[in-house]
Amino acid sequence: MAIKLGLIGVGRIGKTHLRNISLFVPELEIKTVADPFANEQTVAYAAQFGIKNVTKNADDIFNDPEIEAVAICSSTDTHAEYIVKAARAGKHCFCEKPIATDIAVIKNALAEVKKAGIKLQVGFVRRADHNHKAVYDMVKSGKVGKPHIIKITSRDPEPPPIAYVKVSGGIFYDMAIHDFDMARFLAGDEVEEVFAAGAVLVDPAIGEAGDVDTAVVTLKFKGGTIAVIDNSRRAVYGYDQRVEVFGDKGVAMNSNDIPNTATFADANGTVGGTAYQVMWTRYEQAFVSEMKAFAKAIVNDEEPPVTGEDGLYPVLMAAAATKSCKEGRPVKISEVDV
Amino acid sequence: MAIKLGLIGVGRIGKTHLRNISLFVPELEIKTVADPFANEQTVAYAAQFGIKNVTKNADDIFNDPEIEAVAICSSTDTHAEYIVKAARAGKHCFCEKPIATDIAVIKNALAEVKKAGIKLQVGFVRRADHNHKAVYDMVKSGKVGKPHIIKITSRDPEPPPIAYVKVSGGIFYDMAIHDFDMARFLAGDEVEEVFAAGAVLVDPAIGEAGDVDTAVVTLKFKGGTIAVIDNSRRAVYGYDQRVEVFGDKGVAMNSNDIPNTATFADANGTVGGTAYQVMWTRYEQAFVSEMKAFAKAIVNDEEPPVTGEDGLYPVLMAAAATKSCKEGRPVKISEVDV
Amino acid sequence: MAIKLGLIGVGRIGKTHLRNISLFVPELEIKTVADPFANEQTVAYAAQFGIKNVTKNADDIFNDPEIEAVAICSSTDTHAEYIVKAARAGKHCFCEKPIATDIAVIKNALAEVKKAGIKLQVGFVRRADHNHKAVYDMVKSGKVGKPHIIKITSRDPEPPPIAYVKVSGGIFYDMAIHDFDMARFLAGDEVEEVFAAGAVLVDPAIGEAGDVDTAVVTLKFKGGTIAVIDNSRRAVYGYDQRVEVFGDKGVAMNSNDIPNTATFADANGTVGGTAYQVMWTRYEQAFVSEMKAFAKAIVNDEEPPVTGEDGLYPVLMAAAATKSCKEGRPVKISEVDV
Amino acid sequence: MAIKLGLIGVGRIGKTHLRNISLFVPELEIKTVADPFANEQTVAYAAQFGIKNVTKNADDIFNDPEIEAVAICSSTDTHAEYIVKAARAGKHCFCEKPIATDIAVIKNALAEVKKAGIKLQVGFVRRADHNHKAVYDMVKSGKVGKPHIIKITSRDPEPPPIAYVKVSGGIFYDMAIHDFDMARFLAGDEVEEVFAAGAVLVDPAIGEAGDVDTAVVTLKFKGGTIAVIDNSRRAVYGYDQRVEVFGDKGVAMNSNDIPNTATFADANGTVGGTAYQVMWTRYEQAFVSEMKAFAKAIVNDEEPPVTGEDGLYPVLMAAAATKSCKEGRPVKISEVDV
Repeated sequence: MAIKLGLIGVGRIGKTHLRNISLFVPELEIKTVADPFANEQTVAYAAQFGIKNVTKNADDIFNDPEIEAVAICSSTDTHAEYIVKAARAGKHCFCEKPIATDIAVIKNALAEVKKAGIKLQVGFVRRADHNHKAVYDMVKSGKVGKPHIIKITSRDPEPPPIAYVKVSGGIFYDMAIHDFDMARFLAGDEVEEVFAAGAVLVDPAIGEAGDVDTAVVTLKFKGGTIAVIDNSRRAVYGYDQRVEVFGDKGVAMNSNDIPNTATFADANGTVGGTAYQVMWTRYEQAFVSEMKAFAKAIVNDEEPPVTGEDGLYPVLMAAAATKSCKEGRPVKISEVDV
Repeated sequence: MAIKLGLIGVGRIGKTHLRNISLFVPELEIKTVADPFANEQTVAYAAQFGIKNVTKNADDIFNDPEIEAVAICSSTDTHAEYIVKAARAGKHCFCEKPIATDIAVIKNALAEVKKAGIKLQVGFVRRADHNHKAVYDMVKSGKVGKPHIIKITSRDPEPPPIAYVKVSGGIFYDMAIHDFDMARFLAGDEVEEVFAAGAVLVDPAIGEAGDVDTAVVTLKFKGGTIAVIDNSRRAVYGYDQRVEVFGDKGVAMNSNDIPNTATFADANGTVGGTAYQVMWTRYEQAFVSEMKAFAKAIVNDEEPPVTGEDGLYPVLMAAAATKSCKEGRPVKISEVDV
Repeated sequence: MAIKLGLIGVGRIGKTHLRNISLFVPELEIKTVADPFANEQTVAYAAQFGIKNVTKNADDIFNDPEIEAVAICSSTDTHAEYIVKAARAGKHCFCEKPIATDIAVIKNALAEVKKAGIKLQVGFVRRADHNHKAVYDMVKSGKVGKPHIIKITSRDPEPPPIAYVKVSGGIFYDMAIHDFDMARFLAGDEVEEVFAAGAVLVDPAIGEAGDVDTAVVTLKFKGGTIAVIDNSRRAVYGYDQRVEVFGDKGVAMNSNDIPNTATFADANGTVGGTAYQVMWTRYEQAFVSEMKAFAKAIVNDEEPPVTGEDGLYPVLMAAAATKSCKEGRPVKISEVDV
Repeated sequence: MAIKLGLIGVGRIGKTHLRNISLFVPELEIKTVADPFANEQTVAYAAQFGIKNVTKNADDIFNDPEIEAVAICSSTDTHAEYIVKAARAGKHCFCEKPIATDIAVIKNALAEVKKAGIKLQVGFVRRADHNHKAVYDMVKSGKVGKPHIIKITSRDPEPPPIAYVKVSGGIFYDMAIHDFDMARFLAGDEVEEVFAAGAVLVDPAIGEAGDVDTAVVTLKFKGGTIAVIDNSRRAVYGYDQRVEVFGDKGVAMNSNDIPNTATFADANGTVGGTAYQVMWTRYEQAFVSEMKAFAKAIVNDEEPPVTGEDGLYPVLMAAAATKSCKEGRPVKISEVDV
């Protein structure tokens, strides 16, 4: 018998999870979909995957005793509240990243999760990516040895709308946060200090909105590992995602993912295909994998691969990076951990 | 309203098409599944995708007026017969390759298809592969110019069981046939003469069964293009599939598909991942694409991407290659085209 | 004390060897340079490297008792005659490829070499190439296992002048001969049968001169290995030289050599540099290596890395390929070995 | 007529320049070699390249009116003194990096150079490297656009002896200095602020000597570009040198240089060759190119490709990086520029 799940929020990411769970995760069955803006299109989209219950009220999910798990895909400012509700209702919880931007709010939600004993998985989807996971596996196997230097390149094809930049918390909260999680994942250690160098080189409007669009962040881990992340809001060649872990026994790295291996050569050189242009295609398989992992954690009563703690630390790092970038000095995690 | 389809044969390839159509091709709806060996497992598998009708009698499909299309995934010796039945019943037809090994039988089936005016698509799935299609698109765009030399490398991880080798018609019919289709696809031309050099280097039992396990086949096309295919029944490193088209304006090629781009380097060198070990994973996306194309051909009333003629020619090439390999001389297609 | 050497023929290849020996091979000292067309420029070129003796008469070299070795870089039709003179004068001999196009002439020269007990090295420079040698070393080490399939791609940037095509013996004698040598080198075995498919696709004038400009040659070795060579007189993207040895334990291959690893990516794709445009740059290091090997063979009294026999077999293969291409059938080496 | 040159210091780098000038730079003729430790081996080495004058006294060079240029390859602490002597003697000067570690000393030397009007080229050899130069050329051509992020990976195979670490000034002065120069070269701009994160992860003895062995350095350029350099004293897989310039129009990068393109694949994966293990082989061609450029600058009366100013700035960056690493805060160049 499949575990009954309620899905909250049917925007782009919600639609993706709805489809993936329906097609590829037989252990989960979406019973109800909730979205305050649910309309005919929402009903039609859900129906396409055999889901009949569509509601504007998320409480219809929390109050349904048959529902064992929820997937929170609503806007960031509602995540923590819904986690708390899920915890109190005793329902396992998959929550999109970040849990919140306010650290006290996150800690409160995690406390409720702990008290309730539910499982909470945070949607850091890149841990499930085939290329990144392959590097992680090499590190995990011990062949890289102790990590000395970690390099993460993470560039988006296009900046988000300025309206979004204004409310997202900025590049470190809405974009680098994935890389902060990846750095911890690859290092197997916690960050002690963050130094962020930022610049406005892509679009002056981003600077006017109080953010930077280009950044290089140095992370010092407790065990000595140094990581460096470089971010840009606009890579004209498309989505660029690479990681490298250099250790005392060797180096593991991946190259950017490309849709095919075909090349063409003439007197102008050898031309390979462009990178992926959209995140959804780039991480298509990873979105499926993370949801399978969530189902597996519930079924086997295991810890999910990305825990609530894993949801907290990247936000601390984002807070430190934001402060570091503004004040032009390295900032310790302890300075922002209230 | 989805087009109702009957699927005949629920072995490995049948299961793949059943799943893919159910999950990814909303334009098609599998109404009935037929397999002489259908049992409880078959029923359960079909039920998993919401298919209720499972029968041992393929005629239940051909006689069902509601069914507009059939997918023939049964054993090769039944393909032509079912195509004829589909044609006479006025149902569009997707048929796994090869249509038959007997050329007269194929021609007869194609004549019935023509008379009935149904659409017939043959399952040369590699035309839909992302890497091969990317090379094809470069050729098609004109940037390669006229093809002078085409190179196709096609190696399997493991030989099939000897029992299969004995009945399949041999390496040129059961394995190289995909490459014969690919050569025609990339050349955009017809073959005039075939020279096949074969050897038994992998397993003497294959030789005792009257077949070779290693082959290099040279194809001379009518327009002058020369193609060369190299086949092996066993590549210890996994599935190896590469194509190259060298023309007067440049060269298009791909490299073997690998599951991820991660590498590890130490004093022993730089190590990348292994190739795919199984065909199903290697061509996972291509199996979906070809079925979407079949649905599109029906919906838009277009010619399918792989026609009945495309099903005939590779068999002629296989016949010529087999004869060439045995007689140690180049063989013209006209010699085997009865 | 350096071994004194006479160099015969100061065309392009002669100049290359003159320079390389002078700069990089201290074990050899060029005492005399001979060329029937020697002029002021020849004297100046030689002087630049400290060589004072320039003569129009090659016998000045053969008659000089102080000279222990000769490098024959003159036109092909003089090679065998000079080898015989060197043998009779008891001088070791480096000779550019091919020894001759007439097999009886070659055999006669080799007989004289044997009788005299001198060392003869033939200039198949690609055996010394860093990329090809690396593949050879992998095969030699046993990690590839028994070679099943060998693939050699060899394409020139531009056809030679038609005048040259008319006298060179054609594509199999002047171009593929390097690949015939490479195939034997990689296979570690002798060829039994040759099938050559040729076409005139680059320039009709080449066809009018009685040659082909595009060819695919299949070689069957005595031990069962099958090799395939593809040649073109014109690759618009530059010099293309790749080899692959597929065996029962794995596959060794190289990719085409490029001048640097830099790439540029934008929305049009990822562009790498062009291939080498000229043979001299492509094989710069290999020309030095082969001459060092010649010096080493003399100094250590060892067999040179490319023997007189190695000079004979590729010519037999060229003869068989030429006959095969003309008669449209596989030709055994025994048919052309008189 | 070749320009007569005196070479001072015949250690490893001096021997390299002596050989390269003799073999490949006909515009320069080494008349005299000076080294306080010159002995029989020095005389023999020089004689091998036709150089007869070997002296223990560098003044024999400065006092020789026939000598027009000097190459300073002695220990770092003597560089500035010899530059001043060369300037006062009116001789052009090639000087190994760094000019000095004391900034006032460098500035004094540059003032003398300016006053004398001689040409001074500093030996930042990597500017002449084929892979790095190819990336530079892409940036210079404008196709990358304005550089936003520059990434430089620079790792050595083995740490230098501890004795050297103690006197060299540390990792930023003896190793990263090349990367500081490369960052300026690629950015086409000057650095404003430096943040260096360092750790002792390779060898505790390096820490005891007051240095770090692992470092990530962030550079903020005046024009907004952010660069990041990662250094390690020990990469077990060999010399690792890569650069990347990401700009608003695209990204230019290179991959690490490897001796050949051969790969081997079996069930354990695809293995490529190891990186270069020694700097001399890795930058063999670059050492020749920089010396040719020095000769060209003199002959054509042009500015050398790496000027005295280019010798100063990386030392300022090293000073700032050292201070930053010790004090754990970003340091402005203006703080260390006395």
